Amino acid sequence: MSLAAFLTPESHSTCRPVGASVLGQRLESPADIADITRRVWQDSMNVLQAPHIYSGVEMALWDLLGKRYEEPVYRLLGYDKAFAKQPYVVVPFAAVPEQTFERMRHIRQAGYRAVKTGWSGFGHGNIASDLSQLAAAREGLGADARLFIDAARIWGCDVVAAKRYCPLFDQFSIEWVEEPFDPTALNAYADFAAHHGRMRLAAGENIHSIQQAQQLLNIAGIGVIQIDCGRVGGIGAAKEIAQYADLRCARYINHTYTSHLALSASLQAYAGLERQDLCEYPMDPTSLSWSICREHLLVGGDGEVTIPNAPGLGITISLDDLQRYVVDLEIRIGRTTLYRTPSIR
Amino acid sequence: MSLAAFLTPESHSTCRPVGASVLGQRLESPADIADITRRVWQDSMNVLQAPHIYSGVEMALWDLLGKRYEEPVYRLLGYDKAFAKQPYVVVPFAAVPEQTFERMRHIRQAGYRAVKTGWSGFGHGNIASDLSQLAAAREGLGADARLFIDAARIWGCDVVAAKRYCPLFDQFSIEWVEEPFDPTALNAYADFAAHHGRMRLAAGENIHSIQQAQQLLNIAGIGVIQIDCGRVGGIGAAKEIAQYADLRCARYINHTYTSHLALSASLQAYAGLERQDLCEYPMDPTSLSWSICREHLLVGGDGEVTIPNAPGLGITISLDDLQRYVVDLEIRIGRTTLYRTPSIR
Repeated sequence: MSLAAFLTPESHSTCRPVGASVLGQRLESPADIADITRRVWQDSMNVLQAPHIYSGVEMALWDLLGKRYEEPVYRLLGYDKAFAKQPYVVVPFAAVPEQTFERMRHIRQAGYRAVKTGWSGFGHGNIASDLSQLAAAREGLGADARLFIDAARIWGCDVVAAKRYCPLFDQFSIEWVEEPFDPTALNAYADFAAHHGRMRLAAGENIHSIQQAQQLLNIAGIGVIQIDCGRVGGIGAAKEIAQYADLRCARYINHTYTSHLALSASLQAYAGLERQDLCEYPMDPTSLSWSICREHLLVGGDGEVTIPNAPGLGITISLDDLQRYVVDLEIRIGRTTLYRTPSIR
Repeated sequence: MSLAAFLTPESHSTCRPVGASVLGQRLESPADIADITRRVWQDSMNVLQAPHIYSGVEMALWDLLGKRYEEPVYRLLGYDKAFAKQPYVVVPFAAVPEQTFERMRHIRQAGYRAVKTGWSGFGHGNIASDLSQLAAAREGLGADARLFIDAARIWGCDVVAAKRYCPLFDQFSIEWVEEPFDPTALNAYADFAAHHGRMRLAAGENIHSIQQAQQLLNIAGIGVIQIDCGRVGGIGAAKEIAQYADLRCARYINHTYTSHLALSASLQAYAGLERQDLCEYPMDPTSLSWSICREHLLVGGDGEVTIPNAPGLGITISLDDLQRYVVDLEIRIGRTTLYRTPSIR
């Protein structure tokens, strides 16, 4: 679908394919990336999918520029150095509390000291069952681990339903609750933040503009903003949000559950912000997204993730591994082939 | 691209194709449409294009239901009667003021008494040139016609730049200015509304949720909300916004520049709201969107547009005319054809 957003022929002047604003443009400096970004925002506004596809393109532009000048992207962004981040892993509740306990104990044994869990029915209203899951997760992880809950928009805009869970969040020392509401329900967030505390309320993965991020901080009143570099418009947009959040003493975190290429791109955006010391960390060595990257941002002996001190994003794609996952896709209009999966080697 | 949003195979539980929530569902009552809508919102949230494609699907669901029960859609929505609306046409500035004058005189001679104009470079900073265009439009239309300006997001979030144009808007009795800013720049709207007046500030065509509409009214402080039924989630969402706006003494208007099928769908949403007496009216008898509809919502002798008192949306598609515009599109993944333009007769 993102390919379609990149390729679909122009409908009218504010509904141009993303590709039309990107292909053939000059790429010699960060200012060129800013120009391309402005053009995409002006001309592809009516293509709702545009921020998604452009985010991927923009990350690639930074990687290219970094490789050309032999600098890590964070340095091109103006940061002097990159501060390591404490990783938290994302592991949903298992089907039953006993399995959740085992899952969390395994995570803890693997050395992680922070976990985000949730969904699998959490929040649907069976508080006794949700309490068992939370208790199992906390017991498996130990009292000193950091524990976060992702509510996955379960309460829509129902603040009363969400508030019913606050005693559970207190009981099991849940550091924050993520996305209790629809991402555009700013008022619901504001009400809940006033009750539960802004630093205990997180959101942001679903937004797709800098302005929306500012509104989450200013109007919705959240204190923890989680930005998906692959949806918000890329590294430039993520960096602007990170700095905005940092100035307001809010917490900025990446939202990343795919590859370490995406992880590196996400971390570049706030690499130089020392106070922003946490990161979402994808760890699934069996997955497609793991195997296509030759290098990974491994957790060091100090339990922290270091941002690559290498040109661009510092990650090489393993084309052999990627090839195994390639799917032949073809989009054809009349006799014109808009897209056909290219050879990648 | 919307086809891709309807069809692209599931990525994960909150990233399902729109089709998966629609196909095979029961359709016997408005409540069934509400159920389908909830499912799409819950499961396709991560497909940013989802509101676009689902809006079209939802309109079709209402049309089907109306035809089955032999009732106009507005009656299924709970309105007793449909109030006629005063149409305004959308005609951009011509390249030079002399042509703009001719264009507007022609519109006036055709019987229209309200026009939305703008873009073609308007607002880029050449105030003398913009003044000439506005003067030509006003002269061509006559002093008693209603005149609106669409600024097409030209000032981004630069309130100072927008305010510079306020004396021009006053001089030529511009009833409101539309989208001076990026649709998510709520603060810029709020600042401008405080200066220029909320009932002289319009926006909304770009939004894609009920919550965003409420924020335009409550936070951005606009007084004129223009909703595209084909982007906001369909007739149900548009109706909810219309009623919300009406209760707050704001003005609700459809945003429609394509077919009279889309026009009828848009008008159903606020048909029964007597105070909401204006509509955006597409009139281009040479276009694709005109020719594919057998019936049109013509302007009566009283200068008003009447909503069809016929089952469903009250518009029949001319399949012969549609056939002339059909393009062969094929989307193929491996050996599976996800989509191939079907025969329409």
